[in-house]
Amino acid sequence: MNSSIEIGVGEKMKVAVAAMLTASHPVISVNGNICSLVPEELVELSEITNAPLEINLFYYRKEREDAILKALDDAGAKEVLGTHDRPSTTIPELSSNRRKVDPDGIGLADLVLVPLEDGDRTEALSKIGKFVITIDLNPISRTAVYSNITIVDNVIRTMPLMVQYAREMSNLSRDELKDIVDGFDNLTNIRNALNLMIENLSSKASLSLEELKEGKK
Amino acid sequence: MNSSIEIGVGEKMKVAVAAMLTASHPVISVNGNICSLVPEELVELSEITNAPLEINLFYYRKEREDAILKALDDAGAKEVLGTHDRPSTTIPELSSNRRKVDPDGIGLADLVLVPLEDGDRTEALSKIGKFVITIDLNPISRTAVYSNITIVDNVIRTMPLMVQYAREMSNLSRDELKDIVDGFDNLTNIRNALNLMIENLSSKASLSLEELKEGKK
Repeated sequence: MNSSIEIGVGEKMKVAVAAMLTASHPVISVNGNICSLVPEELVELSEITNAPLEINLFYYRKEREDAILKALDDAGAKEVLGTHDRPSTTIPELSSNRRKVDPDGIGLADLVLVPLEDGDRTEALSKIGKFVITIDLNPISRTAVYSNITIVDNVIRTMPLMVQYAREMSNLSRDELKDIVDGFDNLTNIRNALNLMIENLSSKASLSLEELKEGKK
Repeated sequence: MNSSIEIGVGEKMKVAVAAMLTASHPVISVNGNICSLVPEELVELSEITNAPLEINLFYYRKEREDAILKALDDAGAKEVLGTHDRPSTTIPELSSNRRKVDPDGIGLADLVLVPLEDGDRTEALSKIGKFVITIDLNPISRTAVYSNITIVDNVIRTMPLMVQYAREMSNLSRDELKDIVDGFDNLTNIRNALNLMIENLSSKASLSLEELKEGKK
């Protein structure tokens, strides 16, 4: 195993990248939020992990699709799936517009990275057997508990690190990558996030009013 | 002491009401958020506690003031301070529009109820010696830690209860009300809120993935 790949602080992100690199058909689901926050990182991660970008909107409007497409194009995207001029199929379990998916994208995917979306989508994808990776600040949201890998963190911090790890890890062997994924347990991961929150709150509960006013950690 | 006034679940709200009922010049600060959520409760609480309503906006626009004024009028408000046609004075410590206050309202007040606003305002009011009551979901926000009484709760749940308690407590003697306020310590209150969060998170951390998916408490 490449000794430069330490599973520590960025553990979940590295596991997520390893899962993307070993998937047969990984796909990155893109909505307006994630696209406006980290368009370049979406395109870079898509290229390094060979995971097509697919636009999926909860409230579809042609103008929104166009705006997202333009942002991805400006960030250097060569191909974007899920647009209105593409073929579409539906996935069960979802009643909103987002049941429509691209047959060459999420329709075919064995793994979907769903950054910054709602719980409906994660639950539906999980129920039809997709391996789902999400990024969510809340470790016990529906998104978080229905995912295979939940990165409990801010997308602004997460996505650039995932790009960096994807670069570093792309020369690892398939076995090395699989070991990283197999060693991961999402319930333990969620509990670790909860325990970190408990630790922080406990330390706040020991501060004086003056220390709280100063914003002491 | 009136035995019907138990200091338990609604403790902070009862203490807040007692403080309002014993203040010489209590004032309720109103912005768009609180006004759109609980206009009737603002008017009722104002009447029972004899605390004028004063409009204070972070981003002043005549249209916003008019909309708030209309909502308060529709809810039965007889008088609203802080409007553009009223005299205004400024309070130190604040650089935004909200340093403007009504000389007959916050300018004169010994106590200000500031529901659902940002930390700047609470800190400024606290620094010029006002007794400040706030309602905030975050027990360690700047608003929360600079307040004299922080009600860590949702305004939708809090305001109707405050109205109810104000009705029940308005016949208590001044000494009884003062005892309630004197027995309150906001740091203990903040720590209790933190401990409740810690307790809830700890119970979540003991659940299985299936229980988390079912939304078990």
